[in-house]
Amino acid sequence: MQDILYAHNEKDGKTFLANLKGKTPLFTCTLSTTETGKISGISAAGANPEITDYTPPADIEMLLLGKCKCINGVPVTPDGIPTPALVTMSALNLAGIATLPVNAGLRVLPHVPFLELGAKPGADIRTGKAVENAEEVLQSAKLAGQILSKTADYLVVAESIPGGTTTALGVLLAMGVDGKGKVSSSMPGNPHDLKTKTVEEGLKASGIAFGDLANDPLRAVSCVGDPMMPAFAGLVLGAAEQIPVLMAGGTQMSAVLAIINALNPNVLGNVAIGTTRWIISDETSDLKALVNQIADVPILAANLDFGSSRFSGLRAYEAGVVKEGVGVGGSAIAAMVKSEGAVTKQTLLREVERNYEQLVTSK
Amino acid sequence: MQDILYAHNEKDGKTFLANLKGKTPLFTCTLSTTETGKISGISAAGANPEITDYTPPADIEMLLLGKCKCINGVPVTPDGIPTPALVTMSALNLAGIATLPVNAGLRVLPHVPFLELGAKPGADIRTGKAVENAEEVLQSAKLAGQILSKTADYLVVAESIPGGTTTALGVLLAMGVDGKGKVSSSMPGNPHDLKTKTVEEGLKASGIAFGDLANDPLRAVSCVGDPMMPAFAGLVLGAAEQIPVLMAGGTQMSAVLAIINALNPNVLGNVAIGTTRWIISDETSDLKALVNQIADVPILAANLDFGSSRFSGLRAYEAGVVKEGVGVGGSAIAAMVKSEGAVTKQTLLREVERNYEQLVTSK
Repeated sequence: MQDILYAHNEKDGKTFLANLKGKTPLFTCTLSTTETGKISGISAAGANPEITDYTPPADIEMLLLGKCKCINGVPVTPDGIPTPALVTMSALNLAGIATLPVNAGLRVLPHVPFLELGAKPGADIRTGKAVENAEEVLQSAKLAGQILSKTADYLVVAESIPGGTTTALGVLLAMGVDGKGKVSSSMPGNPHDLKTKTVEEGLKASGIAFGDLANDPLRAVSCVGDPMMPAFAGLVLGAAEQIPVLMAGGTQMSAVLAIINALNPNVLGNVAIGTTRWIISDETSDLKALVNQIADVPILAANLDFGSSRFSGLRAYEAGVVKEGVGVGGSAIAAMVKSEGAVTKQTLLREVERNYEQLVTSK
Repeated sequence: MQDILYAHNEKDGKTFLANLKGKTPLFTCTLSTTETGKISGISAAGANPEITDYTPPADIEMLLLGKCKCINGVPVTPDGIPTPALVTMSALNLAGIATLPVNAGLRVLPHVPFLELGAKPGADIRTGKAVENAEEVLQSAKLAGQILSKTADYLVVAESIPGGTTTALGVLLAMGVDGKGKVSSSMPGNPHDLKTKTVEEGLKASGIAFGDLANDPLRAVSCVGDPMMPAFAGLVLGAAEQIPVLMAGGTQMSAVLAIINALNPNVLGNVAIGTTRWIISDETSDLKALVNQIADVPILAANLDFGSSRFSGLRAYEAGVVKEGVGVGGSAIAAMVKSEGAVTKQTLLREVERNYEQLVTSK
């Protein structure tokens, strides 16, 4: 697989990838919204903060239906750059990979079937009461992961949650992982100060100091996390007992990894993180430094490059917009492996451009 | 498979069954409740009519958790005979078959993850307005069936819906299938007169005569059906385009078959009905006569016999109580095939007795 980079722990990464050959993946996407994501300047996953409630359901509608139903057009950043779901959809379609949506705390429900785990939308972490029923969601997701592990050869678990890197920072700090200045952003200018300030307000409201909850990940989630986390971690904990699981996302994956590592590190031999080159080469964040503090799981990265695209909205990815989300990197990796190399960064870009033309420029 | 009977269209039944060998099934169970099911004397799926809202979620909790959470003990008939979910759970566990719950219109949600299709509980068919959003549920379920067909080798689709044979009769008559006196009952004395009277009130309220809706199955469901039907039919329509589907149930399957046959008969080459010997040998109903009027799909029956059980609550199955439900027959067939014959009617009865002892007698 020429277009998959080994960004961390190459040895285990190669073993993990070799083990996926000839197997049929199931792509699941955990979908959440929070009030944290609506803090001005936190997230670019929507043209404005209020519309972020519609971004995850619109993303998953695009993956399953080829177009959004709960909004007109497609989700865009404030600068008009389209959602990474466009890339994920292209990768999944090229390789014929099944997609199962997971409601991990949506306020707006998508017009497609989804797996229900009883999760509720997240609150603003500055209240110190971010997630209502983290334990219940984790247990339900774990059972779901066990069920899916009996029908899929391996899982790709992804996420769509606006503001997710801020809540990730919250859980990282609560659990004693030095995350300041290391989480990524869907914006080219990464608002680290705003994120840190937001998280520190949440920690203060919860009465938690750095590292206090190293052994209580569910309390960390409940205080300063988001509902995607127990859903995502539960799916991994349930499935990775039996089958490989590719955690598809950027720096948010470190918070999920910290949760899994605290609850059952034994499953991590079956786990890798799958992301994009945009995350790996991002100078405003540091996924490797985060993962290194937690557990030595491999990081794989799809070597995507939109620099040669004829569309400025796609070339913008090279300037640091978006970077990850909706499992872009993991879906590209799974598509490359499942297609036995027929899907490359070139064929994928062509498919993305075809879909971009149809969905974005023709609005 | 010595303990699987070919009850109808043996030739296609043998081909269907041979095609399942070495494959991994996914067992899905559509779960609904209706106000029709609460009409006094209609259903034995609960100790009393009001508690029928709890029967489907309790059934699915038993399958996934080994015990019920939303009620104490297990669902029983008014005479104290335990739910067929006990048998289904035993079959699925013996063969290690994955179970995916589907909310097809529940009033009480189970404490397990489930697939959400946007279905709502059914009304009383005597109003002539039985199901609110049949088309939406059908489309969502069809998409879900397509998704599942990419991850499972074949589907077993089952149901748990109190009062389901009465709503089945409603749709059969609306679509021009002579169903009077032919649908089965979970009670030894089949209350055909009450069912017919209930359906006739519904048809009258809808302004529909026998056969008026032969080509409009969704309107038949909307007027005098139940929400299980569009969910079940949609799953079959979506999945059977690609993979075999075993429709696990009793005479209700004829109504679902009529719906599928009217919408896309092309998928029926990939479809069989899987039921129990109790249904096939029932003298108060006639599944074969119903299916014969619709489409020539095979009927397979698990040759279950609880006559030798040491528990009177299980021997009661031989006296005509329960007969089917929660996919008893289909789950037993799938367990026999997946285990390559290691699961037989004898080993299954032993497992049922073990679970019966633990869950029922020790309350």
